[in-house]
Amino acid sequence: MKIGIIGLGRMGGNIAKRLMRAGHEAVVYDRNQSAIDELVSGGAVGASSLEDMHAKLADPPIYWVMLPAGDPTEQTIEALAGLCKSEAIIIDGGNTFYKDDIRRAKALAEKNVKYVDVGTSGGVWGLERGYCMMVGGPKETVDLLDPILEALAPGLGTIPRTPGRDGTPNEDPRAEKGYIHAGPAGAGHFVKMVHNGIEYGLMAAYAEGFDILAGKGSEKLPEDERFDLNLTDIAEVWRRGSVISSWLLDLSASALASDQELAKFSGKVADSGEGHWTVEAAMEEAVPAYVLSAALFARYRSRVDHTFGDKLLSAMRFGFGGHVEMPQ
Amino acid sequence: MKIGIIGLGRMGGNIAKRLMRAGHEAVVYDRNQSAIDELVSGGAVGASSLEDMHAKLADPPIYWVMLPAGDPTEQTIEALAGLCKSEAIIIDGGNTFYKDDIRRAKALAEKNVKYVDVGTSGGVWGLERGYCMMVGGPKETVDLLDPILEALAPGLGTIPRTPGRDGTPNEDPRAEKGYIHAGPAGAGHFVKMVHNGIEYGLMAAYAEGFDILAGKGSEKLPEDERFDLNLTDIAEVWRRGSVISSWLLDLSASALASDQELAKFSGKVADSGEGHWTVEAAMEEAVPAYVLSAALFARYRSRVDHTFGDKLLSAMRFGFGGHVEMPQ
Amino acid sequence: MKIGIIGLGRMGGNIAKRLMRAGHEAVVYDRNQSAIDELVSGGAVGASSLEDMHAKLADPPIYWVMLPAGDPTEQTIEALAGLCKSEAIIIDGGNTFYKDDIRRAKALAEKNVKYVDVGTSGGVWGLERGYCMMVGGPKETVDLLDPILEALAPGLGTIPRTPGRDGTPNEDPRAEKGYIHAGPAGAGHFVKMVHNGIEYGLMAAYAEGFDILAGKGSEKLPEDERFDLNLTDIAEVWRRGSVISSWLLDLSASALASDQELAKFSGKVADSGEGHWTVEAAMEEAVPAYVLSAALFARYRSRVDHTFGDKLLSAMRFGFGGHVEMPQ
Amino acid sequence: MKIGIIGLGRMGGNIAKRLMRAGHEAVVYDRNQSAIDELVSGGAVGASSLEDMHAKLADPPIYWVMLPAGDPTEQTIEALAGLCKSEAIIIDGGNTFYKDDIRRAKALAEKNVKYVDVGTSGGVWGLERGYCMMVGGPKETVDLLDPILEALAPGLGTIPRTPGRDGTPNEDPRAEKGYIHAGPAGAGHFVKMVHNGIEYGLMAAYAEGFDILAGKGSEKLPEDERFDLNLTDIAEVWRRGSVISSWLLDLSASALASDQELAKFSGKVADSGEGHWTVEAAMEEAVPAYVLSAALFARYRSRVDHTFGDKLLSAMRFGFGGHVEMPQ
Repeated sequence: MKIGIIGLGRMGGNIAKRLMRAGHEAVVYDRNQSAIDELVSGGAVGASSLEDMHAKLADPPIYWVMLPAGDPTEQTIEALAGLCKSEAIIIDGGNTFYKDDIRRAKALAEKNVKYVDVGTSGGVWGLERGYCMMVGGPKETVDLLDPILEALAPGLGTIPRTPGRDGTPNEDPRAEKGYIHAGPAGAGHFVKMVHNGIEYGLMAAYAEGFDILAGKGSEKLPEDERFDLNLTDIAEVWRRGSVISSWLLDLSASALASDQELAKFSGKVADSGEGHWTVEAAMEEAVPAYVLSAALFARYRSRVDHTFGDKLLSAMRFGFGGHVEMPQ
Repeated sequence: MKIGIIGLGRMGGNIAKRLMRAGHEAVVYDRNQSAIDELVSGGAVGASSLEDMHAKLADPPIYWVMLPAGDPTEQTIEALAGLCKSEAIIIDGGNTFYKDDIRRAKALAEKNVKYVDVGTSGGVWGLERGYCMMVGGPKETVDLLDPILEALAPGLGTIPRTPGRDGTPNEDPRAEKGYIHAGPAGAGHFVKMVHNGIEYGLMAAYAEGFDILAGKGSEKLPEDERFDLNLTDIAEVWRRGSVISSWLLDLSASALASDQELAKFSGKVADSGEGHWTVEAAMEEAVPAYVLSAALFARYRSRVDHTFGDKLLSAMRFGFGGHVEMPQ
Repeated sequence: MKIGIIGLGRMGGNIAKRLMRAGHEAVVYDRNQSAIDELVSGGAVGASSLEDMHAKLADPPIYWVMLPAGDPTEQTIEALAGLCKSEAIIIDGGNTFYKDDIRRAKALAEKNVKYVDVGTSGGVWGLERGYCMMVGGPKETVDLLDPILEALAPGLGTIPRTPGRDGTPNEDPRAEKGYIHAGPAGAGHFVKMVHNGIEYGLMAAYAEGFDILAGKGSEKLPEDERFDLNLTDIAEVWRRGSVISSWLLDLSASALASDQELAKFSGKVADSGEGHWTVEAAMEEAVPAYVLSAALFARYRSRVDHTFGDKLLSAMRFGFGGHVEMPQ
Repeated sequence: MKIGIIGLGRMGGNIAKRLMRAGHEAVVYDRNQSAIDELVSGGAVGASSLEDMHAKLADPPIYWVMLPAGDPTEQTIEALAGLCKSEAIIIDGGNTFYKDDIRRAKALAEKNVKYVDVGTSGGVWGLERGYCMMVGGPKETVDLLDPILEALAPGLGTIPRTPGRDGTPNEDPRAEKGYIHAGPAGAGHFVKMVHNGIEYGLMAAYAEGFDILAGKGSEKLPEDERFDLNLTDIAEVWRRGSVISSWLLDLSASALASDQELAKFSGKVADSGEGHWTVEAAMEEAVPAYVLSAALFARYRSRVDHTFGDKLLSAMRFGFGGHVEMPQ
């Protein structure tokens, strides 16, 4: 199939490459000409503008927008909507908030343009491993996109089949290939959002655990309860037969093997929206999300030296007990 | 009554003063001679050693130990146990872990020495306001100490009577005077420990709330959703008729009135054991203690620039997404 | 002053009464005629509709809307906006989300109608004790409303002055009377929202603490570490000189004095929006809100027998360890 | 090698089998004769008592105790200590608290008996997949046990090598085979304890995430924001290329594939000590453990219908606002 790809960063560029490897045609555009040039040298068709891309695509055209969520994606989709006629397909493959998908899908449906949201996990490894994709949108449109989605997904590969999966009607065979049609517009990004919320939680569980291991050598502990643990070997051994083996642990093991001190990292941790939205969703549903929220808050806290609240705690302690603060 | 007071710091010294104001006799000892001298000039009898104090007290003697929990208290009580005969009373007024009380009470009971643990709240304000006391130990011993405890407690004062208290047998009239006999040895410190655990939680709730108020002026927020709030006036107004009025809020209002920036505080917040023990008690009882533990952890976190766990989060993010850390 | 009050429930009715006690004239309206009749018998002027109220007020009219947040308030304010001309004042005294205030104020400003949001704390006790009020809106309008706000507020009363307050220009003297002008439209409800967020946190801290006290009698604990504690007396004694004394503790003491088992309560705890919004605000500002969120989630959890997540935990434990669940 | 195995439950029996498959000799004992008989029919030597086992082992003997932590393990090790002379090796393969290991190792060292603690992960799958083991004890003893540990461990298998591991002296090659010598006595169980603490956190992250997915179909949400999600397919697709793939997710996918409702689980979740101890260790080190503690507390909460704390929340709300509880 022929597809237009807008946004050729780490994700968009690799998506274009993986599609071309599978025999699809990619028409590519980015504000950065060198990103276009690189893909053109690999067989893509370059576009000089959205209009140019529109002219170079089949009718109806298929667009894959792979831009930062928020203004860049919003403006591009608006521009595409201006170019598109009936039956065109606009895919948002970024990290858009799912309520924006719902709104956009409604607006585009008035012109009979189809909107599809694709939550994409796999990071920089997706080019080789394939992308795990969660798709929202009209059933017929998603069916039509199957060849593209299947090309991007990891496929069955060598991952053992899940015991209990037996092909009953409740199971979508696409899931085993690495993508699903999650539901109507927004459902793809919603599932991806919760995926990222869980990701925050898993990461925080490992982080706290390794913090406890690292702290076990502290001279503040009684001497015979102190252990000088080899975190590199611990991460490695947990990869092998333990209950907590995972891809995130594999990555931790690799980082620790390179430098057990992790000295090149400062510990100021960004968050990209999905953790926040996951907690919002939990609150809308009245679901307790102690762990996922704590994982998010730990990132906020990592970026602040001292909160105003901490100072207030000190001020109260001074107030009732005359307690002087710990030395800075 | 005549009572020996060992440890004349902020708490012990004021306790001696308040007892003398009420007509009791205080025999006082501290490693620091000037602390003794100050109280002697106010009417106390100075002791040059525990042995000297023992000689100057009535028979059976009553000791109030007001020292830091742990070694100082432990060693002093051991030394007193060596001096004491049957019916002597040893009171630990510090912040001892209640399981140490249980152990000590058993050991002392073998010599028929009575052990009483008094959890004391009130901080530097106790001299004037009186101390809120939670007492553990044998009923007869606590009854015998009533004159001393009543002198230290705030008394009925002007605090309105609790609606619903009606003198039924389940109610101990001492509670309204500001002290209770909580149960056998350890019960006093246990109740005081939970008191402090709650204190951590309350403080953290205010701290987080004021943090949110302070952050509402941030330039990262949309301009029309930004408020430059006067925290001093907010703390003040909440003292007056609001649901969250409290003594801790009074102290916060006072600290903010002196300096809305709280610039003299660094935000490194100490903890003194009771928060930790409260969470331990919760775990022993399988009681969920989300808030009290989070309040404790916030204090730990306030004392660290960047945790090892935070660095591991950054390392994982770099591993799966090539994400570069936020600038330091 | 003359003021129209719309919504005569627990809060609105008492506000009308307290205003009339202070000599103000109240024109009152409610969908429930008997609520109107009761106030008319106390001196209020009844209105049969918003139009009737409009006719009975001075020019420009002042309206105090005291309805549930959301649709009832929104629709009433829209209806009033239709009736009002320049300089009219519409006050929303309910628990509106502050972003709705910002939106409404902008829309009304186009007609030169003034919008004021008043966050009101004090609950059922406000009639006697006065209401703690946090006000947002244009300075001149709030100044103009001073007589009304002062009548509703507790006033200086017998609450001791905060040490450190010294009348510097940074301090608004209104704060000591029990109300503040927090900032432009929305600021009043924002401060009230954080107030309620803190309230959730404080309540949860007490709840967890009393849970630990109550659990200390459990037969699962070693016999000599078990205490059968009198929660009624503990709550009472903490009111007297302790660091954790507060109005919420007073209420807890009263509830426990009536029934130490709290048998008439099921433990399914509602939440009214502000806790949720406070956590949202924290996330927008990237402020860690571990305690306030945990307090909110505990309410969600209290309303569910078993979460789906809990079942998944059991399923995983069965999966890796063959662990059979605890008996139901 | 010849080894005595005491405790032939799910874990101990499979350990005996896996050792025999690798050519080791197992002398086996259990209070339950049928468990002995089953292994004898598979080639093991049965023992009728600890004394009998002692007689049937080489000199010095090697014992692997695989019993529930606490009294059963403690008493067995005491009995073995009575039988053993110099150079005997006692291995505790259960879930013992690491401070008990430290104590035992000291006591046994006085008789020159060697104590080794082995934290074992792998659950019911270990027989086929091999066990991930974290070992504490004297270096020479652990070296001597290498043939046994290597036979139990998964070995290199098909798990890809960790990028960055390059055989530098800091890396123990045993880690890649699936076991490590973590440090002196107690270090093995300490690392296993933190492993389980992390396990609780990971499980809770998935549980909360699936709870949010499951709740997204709720009729309380606005109709166009409601999704009826297929949890079975979501778990499946996340196994394939996503950042959150893990063994626990594999198990979740399998449980959901069997029954998307998880109807056979009640949601009352047990905990086995390590989560509690991990939080204790965090507190001893002053490490913030928000996520690991919340994961533990969620298990406590899952076993209670309504906490006393929840009732107190309701009582306070009634007290200040006259709020009536939600219907039960």
